[in-house]
Parts: sequence; structure tokens; C-alpha cells
Amino acid sequence: MTAVKVGLIGYGTVGSAVGRTIRSHQENLQTVFGKEVQVAGVLVRDKQKYEQQVKDTLLTDNVEEFFAITDLDIIIEASVGIEPAYSYLKKAISSGCHIITANKEMIASKGADLKELAKEKGVRLEYEAAVAGGVPVIGTLKQLLHINHVVKVEAILNGTSNFILSEMSDKNIPFEEALQLAQEAGFAEADPANDVDGWDAFYKLMVLSDLLFEAQPDWEKVTRKGIRSVSFQDIHKAAEQGWKIKHVATLENTGGEVTVYVEPVVLSAAHPLYSVDGVDNAVCIEGNLVGKLKLQGPGAGALPTASAIVEDLANLVHQRKELSVKRQFQFTEKREAAPYMHLPSGQVVVQEKPAGENYYRVAGKTERLVAEA
Amino acid sequence: MTAVKVGLIGYGTVGSAVGRTIRSHQENLQTVFGKEVQVAGVLVRDKQKYEQQVKDTLLTDNVEEFFAITDLDIIIEASVGIEPAYSYLKKAISSGCHIITANKEMIASKGADLKELAKEKGVRLEYEAAVAGGVPVIGTLKQLLHINHVVKVEAILNGTSNFILSEMSDKNIPFEEALQLAQEAGFAEADPANDVDGWDAFYKLMVLSDLLFEAQPDWEKVTRKGIRSVSFQDIHKAAEQGWKIKHVATLENTGGEVTVYVEPVVLSAAHPLYSVDGVDNAVCIEGNLVGKLKLQGPGAGALPTASAIVEDLANLVHQRKELSVKRQFQFTEKREAAPYMHLPSGQVVVQEKPAGENYYRVAGKTERLVAEA
Repeated sequence: MTAVKVGLIGYGTVGSAVGRTIRSHQENLQTVFGKEVQVAGVLVRDKQKYEQQVKDTLLTDNVEEFFAITDLDIIIEASVGIEPAYSYLKKAISSGCHIITANKEMIASKGADLKELAKEKGVRLEYEAAVAGGVPVIGTLKQLLHINHVVKVEAILNGTSNFILSEMSDKNIPFEEALQLAQEAGFAEADPANDVDGWDAFYKLMVLSDLLFEAQPDWEKVTRKGIRSVSFQDIHKAAEQGWKIKHVATLENTGGEVTVYVEPVVLSAAHPLYSVDGVDNAVCIEGNLVGKLKLQGPGAGALPTASAIVEDLANLVHQRKELSVKRQFQFTEKREAAPYMHLPSGQVVVQEKPAGENYYRVAGKTERLVAEA
Repeated sequence: MTAVKVGLIGYGTVGSAVGRTIRSHQENLQTVFGKEVQVAGVLVRDKQKYEQQVKDTLLTDNVEEFFAITDLDIIIEASVGIEPAYSYLKKAISSGCHIITANKEMIASKGADLKELAKEKGVRLEYEAAVAGGVPVIGTLKQLLHINHVVKVEAILNGTSNFILSEMSDKNIPFEEALQLAQEAGFAEADPANDVDGWDAFYKLMVLSDLLFEAQPDWEKVTRKGIRSVSFQDIHKAAEQGWKIKHVATLENTGGEVTVYVEPVVLSAAHPLYSVDGVDNAVCIEGNLVGKLKLQGPGAGALPTASAIVEDLANLVHQRKELSVKRQFQFTEKREAAPYMHLPSGQVVVQEKPAGENYYRVAGKTERLVAEA
């Protein structure tokens, strides 16, 4: 009885945790697959860096050598950036491998191409770990979409930004200091742009857009704001009203008109995302039948992400019928007066269109929390 | 091309919503199944009661007539109580039908038998709607169990009790008055015992126990307390500390020792169930790899429950491999000093074992909130 052969692309925090999890959960995986699941090879950029860690399987930085492994069944990709991941996965799908990826930028940019190719070749493409880490948002949405129209998704998708905003609020410190704490705690990269400028949340939202509509809006036309402009004065001012400032990704389908934003917003205590603090992610889903669901949990971290990836792996044994969910809709461009904030009635502050950075959407209008210096 | 033939048992709030949803979502279901999905018959206790509602399919109160429908593929059961549901479902499985049920008492009592019979006959038994209505807790746990050990589940599983406690707190009214509001709003039955004495939450917790351990504790030995004994003085006293009283079902696996409770507990604002108000249900799951997840949403109601049932229906086309998750464990009996409450450190109140009703678990000890009159 031959083993299920898995090839790993990338051996950073997530990739190495996947390797370890496959080894340590061999009994579970053998129960699922009916045979051994073997990491047959690891492809990295710099072989020397990982030689001490990878000793019981092929470690290579040569893509030809990696794809020369005979009878690879599944490729798990946990690298960063569109290339070379995209080229590698195209090659893998073409040779009949199932794909599991945690690479949000790649799947946001090239997911539609890869899905089409995977369909053509009769293989599966799974990406639960790419959005909100261990929180099962992709599986839940796929399940709901059988029957529900998803009319709204509001989500905290970047744990780093949420941690920084929580720290600024709890410790009354400015952005730069909270960023440093995040970096010291290992929650933020040396170059934090991907997180704090909203790109990470944006990529994840585009992945959700692909899933819900089999389409994405023009990236240039999507409001994508990060948290650099949020001052602790803003946070303090909001707190005086019992509000919090959170970095929220929104996707709203109003009768076929789809609006998409990524930006800091003011939330009252009545909003389901208000209580989501620290590095947690949370996704609020509104379906026409099921109503309002909220899923919350660790959006990053080696183990939760590896858990989502190895769950995808185990799920490959289920013969899933992929659904086509095309519906009539169009993406709308940036809209200033979108009904955003969830405030108890009677607390709506009406103000004109914003000029500067420190304005936030508040219940259909835009409010400035702190007066110009 | 023949249709997929569905038989409905029960045509109350949920059953009739399922019938309507199957009809109104025919296009989705045809995409999933590749053919029409037809409600071929409805079995009820009292035929006359539903004659005005059921006109385009067989309506019967004669079980022989119901099972005489040729080529039934799937039975959806949405009735109340163990019998006659259990006998009907045994009969259905024996004749090769897949089963979907929302009947928590029946599945808590007879789920193990039905699962075994279903396995033997090669049919599926699905029950997502039986626990927390539209919240996808069964699917999420099945998914996690591939890889994770679930070490703890804490949940608000009875929307009626949660609504009553929220109303008592918000409006400063006693139990009886809040119960009346719940009855007027349609959230509580004329005989509320099933909800307010903790039975409903207990049944759901037993279903989760079956799923996680393929076993249940001795029902007599499980702490099962409802909310009748919670006074608004208790709630007020807790609120003075910034705490809330919630009705929580807990299942905890500590190194193979499993403890199970259903009771009102005191929660600080730091606990993830603290913010769950009104009729919502919420389930906190802790897995050894994935960490802490929280799922929240409508735990009852015709549409969310019908949504979960029709999602189960759509999922039948996926060939799922059922996992056996037996592990080493034992259920422990009632324990007085269980670490229950989630309080910020420094707020622990130490007190002796309770004598009366208005004591609550607080951080490893039991506290009385209101002094004896």
C-alpha cells in the first residue's frame, strides 16, 4: 500500500508547523486516508537555512528536483508573495496534484486562474488557512452558499492591526509604540506595511469576494485604508462615547450592488465586532435565511494556521462537488455616505464629507473625532 | 431523470419552513443534485390541522401510507420528543433512506443507535440543526476533529434562557415577568420546563458529547440546573462587579477526564460568552492546535433552523467518510470545586460549598451573590 505523498513549498513558521503536524498526527491521517501520509519533499528558496530542521525528507531549492519526486499527490504551499508560488502551483495542478495554500496575496491575485485550471484537471484547490487562519470561514461560507444568499460580511481580518489598536486603547500609547510592542511579540514584521496599510485584510477580502461572487472589484477602486492614521486621541475620543475604533473589512451585497471597503471604523458596544480584541480575527456573516453568524478565533499563528491546512488535507478524501455561485451583481465604486457604523439610535453624528485622514464612517455620515490642531 | 424524493416528518414551524425552503431554493438544489428535489410526502400527527397548508404533495397521518411512497431517498424529521420519531427513523434507515433531523431530545437519547444502524445500512445521518440551530457547530467540530483534540466546549445553547436572563438584566424584572415576555415574543412555550429547567441545553450537550467522544455520561450524574432560581437581585449584584449571569453548558476534557455541566454561571466581561445576549446561541470551542474559536448566531427560529437542515440536505451529495474518534477518557461525576468562572485575576471570591440555590461557580469556588433574607 503506497503512501499519500505530500510536497511542501515553504518552510517558514507555517510550513514547518504543517510538516510537524503531519508527522505528529499520522494516526489521525492514516484513519482518514487509509494509508500513511508522507512529506515526500520540501521546496525552499534557501536550502542552507533549513538543513538543520529538515533531515528525514528531501530538502531542495531546485524546483526541477522537487517536481521530479514520483507520484506526488498533494502540494501544500505556505510561502509569501505571488511568485514563484503561482508558477509552481500551476505546474503542480498540471501534473495532477491537489493544492492546499495559505498564501493570501497569491490566491487573491491568481485564485480565479488556479480554480479554473484545477477544475479542468479534476483536482482540488483548498485555501481555508488563507483567510482568518484557524477560523473556519471558507468552509462555513461554502456550506451556507448552498442555500443562502450572503448579503453582508464584516470582518476583522488582520490580527496585527487589531492587536495594535487594542494596545493603543488599553495602554493609551501612540501607533508607533504599539507597533513596536507588536513587533516584539512577533505579531508584526520588521516591515509592517502589509498589515498596517490594510493590504493583508484587503487580500483576504478579495478571496472572500471570489468565493461569494466568482468575481472581484477593480482593486484600484476599492477603499483600502490601514491604521497608521489612527491616533490615540481618536481612540480616546471614541472611548468617551463608549465606542471603539476597529480595522474592518466589509463586503455588502444590496440587491446585486456589491460594496467593498477596508478601513478603520467606529463601532458601538452593540456591534458584534466591538468585543473582538487583541490578535483575534472575527467574521460576521449575514445570510438571507440563516441570519447573522459570527465566527471568531486566532487569525494567525503557526499552530492554528497549520490546523486549518491539515484539516483541508484531511478533507481531500471527501468527494466534494464544487458549486458555481454566479449571481447577478455589480461592484460599486467608493461611496462616501455608506451606512457603516452600528450605533444605538439617537447617537448619530451628522457631518460633512471628510477632508483629512482622521475621519471615520459613523452611521451613514462621516465624523471627525478630534478637531484640527 | 427521476427526482430526489424527500419525505418530511413534522410540519410545525421548522418542518413547514423546510418545505417552503426546498420549494423556493429549487434552483440551488438542482445545481447541487443535478436533478429536481421533490417533497414527496408529509407525515403529521393530525392531518386536519395542516390540510390548508399542504396542498401540492401527499399529506398523511398514516405511517404506512407515508412509507409506501415509492423510492423515498431522504427523510427530514422535525418533530418533538423521542417517540414516534425514533421508530420512524429506524424504519426509514432500514429501508435505505438518508436521515436529517432537528430533534435534539431524540438524537440525544437515540443518536448512537441510529448512527450505528445508518453505518450498517450505508446511509447518512445528519443533525446540524439539532444543536444551536443555524450556528454551524456540528460541521465545525467534525472538521476540527480530523486533527484537533477538543479540550473544552462552553456554550449558550438555549436561546429562551438567554433571552430571559438578558431581559431580567436589561429591564430589572423578575424571572416570571421575563418568562412572560419570552412567551409573548414566541421564544418560550406555554410549558417552559424544557427550556428554563435546562433540559434543552442538556440534550444538545449530550449530542456534542456523542460527537466528541462517541459516548455520554450517565444522565443522572450530570449537573443540570436551569434558570428558575436566578433572581434579579443576583443579576443586579453580579452587575455591580461588572459581571453577568448566563446559562452555560460545559464539556471539559482534562487529560481524559471529562466533566459536563449545565447551569447558570457568573461571567466577567473577559469571558467570550459575556457579550452573547438575547436569543442568540454561542459555542466556544478549544482545540489543542486551533486554539479558541467562538461561533455565534441564531440558535432557533424557523428560517435559521431550516437553513441548517437544507444545508445538510445539499451536503448529502458529498461523499463523506465518517471518522471514528474514540479516545481514552472517562466522565467524572459532579464536582463542587470545578474551575468555572472566567474572572480577571484578583477578583476571586473564596467561599464554602453552597447550601441553597443562589450560589454560582466563581473561579474554582462557589459564591453566594445575595445574602439570605
